[in-house]
This record gives sequence, C-alpha cells and structure tokens, in this order.
Amino acid sequence: MDSITIIGMTSIIIAGLTIAIGSIAPAIGEGNAVAQALRSIAQQPDESNTISRTLFVGLAMIESTAIYCFVISMILLFANPFWNAVIG
Amino acid sequence: MDSITIIGMTSIIIAGLTIAIGSIAPAIGEGNAVAQALRSIAQQPDESNTISRTLFVGLAMIESTAIYCFVISMILLFANPFWNAVIG
Amino acid sequence: MDSITIIGMTSIIIAGLTIAIGSIAPAIGEGNAVAQALRSIAQQPDESNTISRTLFVGLAMIESTAIYCFVISMILLFANPFWNAVIG
Amino acid sequence: MDSITIIGMTSIIIAGLTIAIGSIAPAIGEGNAVAQALRSIAQQPDESNTISRTLFVGLAMIESTAIYCFVISMILLFANPFWNAVIG
Amino acid sequence: MDSITIIGMTSIIIAGLTIAIGSIAPAIGEGNAVAQALRSIAQQPDESNTISRTLFVGLAMIESTAIYCFVISMILLFANPFWNAVIG
Amino acid sequence: MDSITIIGMTSIIIAGLTIAIGSIAPAIGEGNAVAQALRSIAQQPDESNTISRTLFVGLAMIESTAIYCFVISMILLFANPFWNAVIG
Amino acid sequence: MDSITIIGMTSIIIAGLTIAIGSIAPAIGEGNAVAQALRSIAQQPDESNTISRTLFVGLAMIESTAIYCFVISMILLFANPFWNAVIG
Amino acid sequence: MDSITIIGMTSIIIAGLTIAIGSIAPAIGEGNAVAQALRSIAQQPDESNTISRTLFVGLAMIESTAIYCFVISMILLFANPFWNAVIG
Amino acid sequence: MDSITIIGMTSIIIAGLTIAIGSIAPAIGEGNAVAQALRSIAQQPDESNTISRTLFVGLAMIESTAIYCFVISMILLFANPFWNAVIG
Amino acid sequence: MDSITIIGMTSIIIAGLTIAIGSIAPAIGEGNAVAQALRSIAQQPDESNTISRTLFVGLAMIESTAIYCFVISMILLFANPFWNAVIG
Amino acid sequence: MDSITIIGMTSIIIAGLTIAIGSIAPAIGEGNAVAQALRSIAQQPDESNTISRTLFVGLAMIESTAIYCFVISMILLFANPFWNAVIG
Amino acid sequence: MDSITIIGMTSIIIAGLTIAIGSIAPAIGEGNAVAQALRSIAQQPDESNTISRTLFVGLAMIESTAIYCFVISMILLFANPFWNAVIG
Amino acid sequence: MDSITIIGMTSIIIAGLTIAIGSIAPAIGEGNAVAQALRSIAQQPDESNTISRTLFVGLAMIESTAIYCFVISMILLFANPFWNAVIG
Amino acid sequence: MDSITIIGMTSIIIAGLTIAIGSIAPAIGEGNAVAQALRSIAQQPDESNTISRTLFVGLAMIESTAIYCFVISMILLFANPFWNAVIG
Repeated sequence: MDSITIIGMTSIIIAGLTIAIGSIAPAIGEGNAVAQALRSIAQQPDESNTISRTLFVGLAMIESTAIYCFVISMILLFANPFWNAVIG
Repeated sequence: MDSITIIGMTSIIIAGLTIAIGSIAPAIGEGNAVAQALRSIAQQPDESNTISRTLFVGLAMIESTAIYCFVISMILLFANPFWNAVIG
Repeated sequence: MDSITIIGMTSIIIAGLTIAIGSIAPAIGEGNAVAQALRSIAQQPDESNTISRTLFVGLAMIESTAIYCFVISMILLFANPFWNAVIG
Repeated sequence: MDSITIIGMTSIIIAGLTIAIGSIAPAIGEGNAVAQALRSIAQQPDESNTISRTLFVGLAMIESTAIYCFVISMILLFANPFWNAVIG
Repeated sequence: MDSITIIGMTSIIIAGLTIAIGSIAPAIGEGNAVAQALRSIAQQPDESNTISRTLFVGLAMIESTAIYCFVISMILLFANPFWNAVIG
Repeated sequence: MDSITIIGMTSIIIAGLTIAIGSIAPAIGEGNAVAQALRSIAQQPDESNTISRTLFVGLAMIESTAIYCFVISMILLFANPFWNAVIG
Repeated sequence: MDSITIIGMTSIIIAGLTIAIGSIAPAIGEGNAVAQALRSIAQQPDESNTISRTLFVGLAMIESTAIYCFVISMILLFANPFWNAVIG
Repeated sequence: MDSITIIGMTSIIIAGLTIAIGSIAPAIGEGNAVAQALRSIAQQPDESNTISRTLFVGLAMIESTAIYCFVISMILLFANPFWNAVIG
Repeated sequence: MDSITIIGMTSIIIAGLTIAIGSIAPAIGEGNAVAQALRSIAQQPDESNTISRTLFVGLAMIESTAIYCFVISMILLFANPFWNAVIG
Repeated sequence: MDSITIIGMTSIIIAGLTIAIGSIAPAIGEGNAVAQALRSIAQQPDESNTISRTLFVGLAMIESTAIYCFVISMILLFANPFWNAVIG
Repeated sequence: MDSITIIGMTSIIIAGLTIAIGSIAPAIGEGNAVAQALRSIAQQPDESNTISRTLFVGLAMIESTAIYCFVISMILLFANPFWNAVIG
Repeated sequence: MDSITIIGMTSIIIAGLTIAIGSIAPAIGEGNAVAQALRSIAQQPDESNTISRTLFVGLAMIESTAIYCFVISMILLFANPFWNAVIG
Repeated sequence: MDSITIIGMTSIIIAGLTIAIGSIAPAIGEGNAVAQALRSIAQQPDESNTISRTLFVGLAMIESTAIYCFVISMILLFANPFWNAVIG
Repeated sequence: MDSITIIGMTSIIIAGLTIAIGSIAPAIGEGNAVAQALRSIAQQPDESNTISRTLFVGLAMIESTAIYCFVISMILLFANPFWNAVIG
C-alpha cells in the first residue's frame, strides 16, 4: 500500500468514527435535559420562559461538543493537511 | 489489494458503521424525551401546547446528531473525495 | 482475493451489521415511549387523544433512525456504487 | 479460498448474526411495553380497550425493526445479488 | 481447507450462535412480562382474564423473535443453499 | 488439519457454547418470574392458584428458549449433518 | 498438531467453559428467587408452605439450565463421539 | 509443542478458569440471599427458624453450581481422560 | 511505510479519537447539570439567578475538559511537532 | 520454547488469575452481607445474636468459593501434576 | 521503522489518549457535583454562599486530576525526554 | 527468548496483575460495609459497639480475599518454584 | 528495534496510561463526596464546619490514589531506572 | 530483543498498570464511605466523633489495598529480583 492509499483510508475511517462516537453523548445528554425541561414545565408552568431559556443555553453548550467532532470530521474529509502533503 | 479496492472497501465499512453507531444515541435520547413528554401531558394536560413545542425543538436538536452521521455516511458513498482521487 | 470478492464480501458484512446494530436503539426507545404512553393513558384517560398523537409523532421520529440504517443497508445491497465500479 | 467460498461463508455468517443481534432489542422493548400494558390494565381496567389498541400499534412499530433484520437475513440467504454474481 | 470444510464449519458456528444469542433477549423479555402479569393479578384479581389474554398475545410477539432465530438456525443446518451449492 | 478434525473441533466448540450462552437468559428470566410469583403470593394469598398457573405457563415459555439451544446442541453432537458428510 | 491433540484440547476447553459460563445465570437467578422467598415469608408467615412449594418448583426449573450445561460438559469429557472417532 | 505439552497446558488453563469464573455467580447469589435473610430476620424475628431453614436449602442449591465447576476442575487436574490417553 | 506516512496516519487517528472520546463525558456531565438546573428552577423560581450563575460556572468548568481535548486535537492537525520534524 | 517453560509459564499465569478473578465475587458478596447485617442490627438490636450467627454461616458459605480458588491456585504452584510429569 | 518514527508515533498516540481518557471522569464528577450544588441551593437558598465555596473547592480538587493528564500530555508533545534522546 | 526470560517476564506480569485485580473487589466491598456501618451508627447510636465489632469481623473476612492475592503475588516475586527450577 | 527504542516507547505508553486510568476513580469518588457534602450542608447548615473538615480529610485520602499514579508516571518519565540502564 | 530489554519493558508496563488499576477501587470505595460519613454527620451531629473514628478505621482498611499495589509497583521499579538476575 502506498502513502496515498494509507492516508486516504485512515481519513475515511476516522472521519466516520469521530462523528459516530462523538454523537453518542450529546444525543443522550440533550435527551436528558429535554426530558427534565418537560417535567419542570409540567410542574411549574408559570416559569416556562425561564426554563426554556435555560434549556436552550444548555442545549447549545451540549451541542457544541458534537460540533467539535463534526468540525474535525469535515476537516479530515475536505481540508486534510496530511492528504494535501502526500497528494502533493 | 490495489488502492481502488482498499478505498472502496473502507468507504463501505465506514458508511455503514457511522450511521449504525450514530443512530443509537439519538433513538434512545428521543425515546427518553418522548416518554417524558407523555408523562408531563398526563400530569398537566393544560400545558400540552407548551410541552409539545418544547418537545419538538428538543427532538430537532437530538435528531441533528443523527443527521450529522447520515450526512457523513452519504458523503462517503456518493461524494467521496478520496474515491474520486484514486478512481481518477 | 480479487477486488470483486472483497467488495462483495464487505458489502454483505456491512449491510447486515448496519441494520442489526441500527435496530437496537430504536426498538428500545420505542418500547420506552410506548410503555410510558400506556402508563399515561392509565393515569389520565381523558387525554388519550393528545397522548396518542404525541406518541405517534415521537415514534415516527425514533423510527426514522432505523430507516436511515435500512436505507444504507439497501443501497449497499442493490445500488452499491463501489460494486458497480469494480464489476464494470 | 476462491470467491464462491468466501461469498458463501460471509453470507452465512451475516445472515445469522443479523437476525441474532437484531432480535435482541425488539424482544426487550416488547417485553417492556407488554409489562407496562399489564400494569396499566391492573390500574385502570376501564381503559383496557384503549390500552390494548395502543399496545398493538406500539408492538407493530417495534416488531418492524426485527422484521427489517429478518428481511435482510432472508435476502442474504435466498436472493443474494453478490452470490448470484460470483456463481454466474 | 477446501470449500466443503469451510462452508460446513461456518454453518455449524452460525447455527449455534444464532440461536444462542437470539434466545437471550426473548427469555429476559418474557420473564419481565410474566413477572409483571403476576404482579398485576395480585393487585387486581378481578381482571385476571384480561391480563392473561394480553400476556399471551405479548408472549407470542416476543417469542416470535426467538423463532426467527430458530428458523434461520434450522435452515443453516438442514436446508443450507450454500452447502448444497458446494456439495453439488 | 484435515476436514474431519476441523468439523469435529467446531462441533464441540459450538455445542458447548450454544447451551452455555443459551442458558444465561432463561435462568435469569425464570428467577425473575419466580421471585415475582413469591411476592404476589405473599401479597394476595387467595389468588395463589391463578398465580401458580400463570407462572407455570410463563416458565414453560421461557424454558422453551433454553430448549431450542439444547436441541441445537444435541443435534451438533449426535445428528450433525456436516460431520456425517465429511465422515462418509 | 495431530487430530487427537486438537480434539482433546478442544474438548477440555469447552467442557470447562460450558459449566463455568453455564453456572453464572442459575446461581444468580436462584439467589434472586431465594431472597424473594425469604422476604415473602417474613411478610406473610402463614403462607410459608405455599411459598416454599412454589420456590422449590422454581429452583428446579432454574437448576435445569445448569444441569443441561453439566450434561454437555460430562458428555464432552466421558462420552465424546468426536474423540471416539479420532481415537479409533 | 508436542501433544503432552499441549494437553497439559490446556488442562491447567481450563482447570483454573473454570473454578475462577464458576465462583463468581454463586458468591454473589449467596451474598444476595444471606443479605435478604438478615433483613427478614430483623423484620420478623419470630420466623427466624423458617427463614434459616429456607436459607440453608437455598444456599445448598446455589452452592451446587459452584461445586459442579469444582468437580470439573478437579477431574481436569487429577482424572483427566485426555491426559491419560496422551501420556499412555 | 515510510516515516511521513506513519506519522501522518497516526496524527489523523489520534486527532479524531481524542475529540471523539473526549466529548463523551462533558456532554453527559453538562446534560446532567442542565437537567438539575431546570429541576431546581421549577422547585425554587425565586433563586433562578443564583442557580443560573452557578450553572454557568459549572458548565464552564466541565466544558474545559472538552476544550483540552479539542486543543490537543488541533495541535496534532495543524501544529504537530513530530510531523514538522519528519517533514523537515 | 520447551515443555518445561510452557508448563511453568502457564502454571504461573493461571495460579495468579484464578485467585485474582476468584476473589472478586466473594469480596463483593461478603460486603453485601455484612452491610445488610449492620443495617439489621441497627433496626432490630434485640436480635443481634441471631443475626450474627446467620451472618457467620453465610460468610463461611461465601468464603468457601474463594477458598476453592485458593486451593486450585496453591495446587498449581506446589502440587502441579503436569509440572511433575514434564520435570520428571 | 527507525527509532525516531516509533518514538514520535508513540508520543502522538499517548498524548491524545491520555487527555481523552483523563477527561472522562472529571467531567462526570464535576457534572455530579454541580448538579448537587444546584439542588442544594434550591433547597436551602440561605446557605448559597457556603455551598458555592464548598463547590469551588471541590471542583478544583476534581479538575486537578484532569490537569495531571493535560500536563503529561503536554510534556509528551513539547518536552519529551525520550524524543530529545533519539533526535539527538 | 530463553526459559529464564520467559519465566521471569511471566512472573512479573502475573505478580502485578494478581494484586491489581485482586484489590478491586475488597476495596469496593469494604467501602460498602463501612458506609453502611456509618449509616447504622447514625441511626442507632446506642448499638455502636455491636456495630463496630460486627464491622471489624466483616472487614477482616473481606480483607482476607485481598490477602490471598497479596500472598500469591509475593510468592511469585520471592519464592517462585518455577523460577527456582529454571534458574537452577 | 533496539533496546533504547523499546524501553523509551514503553515508558511513554505507560506514563500516559497510568495517569489516565489512575485519574478516573479519584475524580468520580471526589465528585461523589463533594456532592454529598453539599447535600449535607443544605440539610444541616449548623454543622458545616464539621462537614467541611471531614470532607477535606476524605478528599485528601482519595486524592492520594491519584497522586500515587502521578508519582509513578513522573518516575517513568524523568527518573526511569530501566532507561538509565539501557542509555548507559 | 535480549533478556534485559524484555524484563525491563515488562517491569515498566506492570509497574504502571498495577498502580493504575489498583487505585480504581480504593478511590471509589473511599468516596462512598466519605459520602456516607457526611450524610450521617448531617443526620446525627451528636455522634460525629464515633462516626469520624469509624470512618478513619475504614479508610485505613480500604487504603491498604491501594498500598499493596503501590508496594508491588515500587518493588518492580527499584527492587526487582528478576531484573537483578538478568542484569547480573
């Protein structure tokens, strides 16, 4: 196997696994936060505005970890410095 | 094995595993959120509108992680830059 | 092993594993949602319409992740671009 | 090992594993849903019709993921495009 | 190893593992459902008929996933198309 | 290793593992069901007949998955079609 | 390694692992059932006869799965058809 | 490696692993049963005789699975038919 | 494989895995903290300011561990001292 | 590697692993039983004699599984029949 | 592979894995502590100062374990004694 | 590798792993017992003598399993019969 | 690979893994202790001094296990006797 | 690889892993015990002396298992009999 094949193969594998593994925890964490938001709204409807606002800030923080993974995954596919080096 | 075979084989493996692994957590997280929404509606029927709206925003956030994986999976199958490089 | 054998073998393996792994979480998530729907109906029979409607929307969202996997699995079996390339 | 042996061996392995792995989650999810249905009937006997109807819809949704796996498994055994290609 | 040995060996392995793995979840799911049925009967003896009927429908649904595995296992042992092909 | 050794070795391995793995879930599921039956009898002694009857039907269903595995295990040891083919 | 060594080695390995793995679940299931029986007797001493009887029937059912494994294990050590074939 | 070494090495490995793995579940199951017995005695001191008797029967049943493993382990060390065959 | 290929391949693999694994725990920990904040707001609306402030400090602490991983990942992709050494 | 080295190496490995693995469950089971005994004494001080007696019988039963492992471990180190055979 | 490649490759792998694995537990532990702080503030708002102070001391202790890992990771990347030795 | 190296290497590995694995369960079991003792003392201060005495007996029993592992570990390092045989 | 490379590579790997694995449990244990301290302060504010003091003693004990790992890790990087021996 | 390299490499690996694995359980067990001590002090402040004393005895017992591992680890690094033998 020459360098191009190896670097290409590795980039494919890691691009996929990074987003696959990296999407596990955010989805579970967000499910947990959303579930609790719904429970809180049912319990204290008058505070639904505060609850929604806090929920959205929290979801944004949690989603950020998924986005870190997505960014790395996209860099590996379309702006991979090692691929550019071996292809050059 | 030549480069085309290796890159093709790797793309198939990762395309499948990415969506397979990536669909685990969203499905569980959404099940968790939906279950809690149903519990909240049963507990506070008057707030079913607020609960539904919050639920749908939450499901969209959670589903987004599954969609990241589906996008990477589709890119690997139909717009794979490494495949195009070796096939060229 | 020549290219045709390798690509064929890989497609079979991943087609099966994708739907096998991909069906784990939706089945558990749906079981969780259905179980909670039944509990909510028993608790608040008057809201069974709202509960059913929310349940069906939720099941559709959860089922969608299983369908992503089924789609990838079917593409690998019957519309596999890599197989078409090596068979050509 | 020639192509026919490899493709045949792979098809047997994946046909079995797909339905074996794919039957885990539906069985657990259905057990969960049925158990909750029985609890709900004991708690609210007057709603046993609504509960049964919702249960059967839910079981059908959950069973569908097991059937996806069974379909792939049967395709691999009796309508396998890769086997037909190498046997030809 | 010639083709006959490989296909035979693979069929034995998968026939056993399919039913072994495939019997895990139904047994646990049925145990869960039966346990809940007994709890419901103790709680609401007057509904034991409805509970039994729902239990048996549920057990049949759950058992079906074990039977899918048993069918695949039996096909691999006694009606294996790949074995017939290599033995011919 | 010749064919007879391979097929014999594989049959021994799978015969043992099938019943070993296949006995895990039934034992746990039956333990769960029996434990709940005892709890129900203590709670509602007057229904001990109904409880026992439902328990025995349930145990039979659960035991059936262990028996599927035992049957496959015995077939592999004493009525193995692949062994008969290579021994012939 | 000749056939006798391989078949002997395999029989030893599987005889041990079968009973080792096969004794995990019955011991846990029986511990669960016995613990619940003790709790039920403490709660409802007047029904200790019914509870004991149901417990012993249940323990016999659970023990049966351990005995299936012990039987296979003993067959592999002392009445192994494959060993007899290669030793002959 | 000659036959004697292989059979000896395998017997040592399996003799140790069988009792090591086989002692996990009985110890946990017995700990569970004893803990519950102590809780029941504290709750219902007048029934301590019935509780002790049921506990000892249960411990004997659970211990039996550990003893199956110990028996196989001892057979492998001191009455191993395969070792006797290769040593002869 | 020459040095450039090995160092490049390793950097890709670790850059992806570091952020993938490193995003698991922060997402779950943040989900946990957000869920509890929502529950606390519903329970004590008058303290929502103190709760929000404590939540944001906590999220920042938790997010910091994800950022450590992202930093290492970016260093490996774009400021890798070992890559610079071998490329030189 | 000659026979003496292999048998010696295997004996060391298994002697260590047997007691290491075999001490996991008894320690946890005994911790569980002791914890419950302390809870029972706090709840029913007048029965501390009966509780202690039952605890010690139970600890002896649980410890016995650790001792089985210790015995096998010591046999492998100091009375190993296979070592004696190859050393002879 | 020469020494420089091996030491470089190993340093990359371990630098990434150390911070990746080492950030799991602090994130979960901090999430746990923050969640409990929020619950305590909601329950006892008058003590929010004491709670915040104890929380920050605790977070610092927990964060220290993540920082140990980050330090080792940075040493491996930028002050690696083994790299300096082989590069010299 | 000659015999001395192999036996020495194996002894080091197993001496370390035995005490490492063997210290897991006692530490957890003792933590469990101590925690319960503290809870019992808080609940029933008048019985703190009986509780302490039972705790120390229990800790001694649990510690014994760690000591078995430490003994085997020390034997392997300083009184290893296999090392003495190959060194002789 | 010569001795220097092997010993260097091994030292890097173990230095990283030791602190990575060794920081898991202290972080979780400290999170657990801190969370409980906050709960106790909220419940019994008058005892916050005693609680803080006991917490800090406990945190020091728990942190000590992380420090053991950090010490070993630092010894392997900067005072490694085996490295000094091979470098000499 | 010569003997010195192998024994040195093995000693490094096991010295690190022993303390890394061996510190997991004590940290968790101590966290558990400390958490319970804080809960008991909050519940029964008058007994804080007895609780502290019992806690410290318990922590010493639990810490002892970590110290066994640290001792073995230090022996392997600085008083290793096998290293002394091969270095001699």
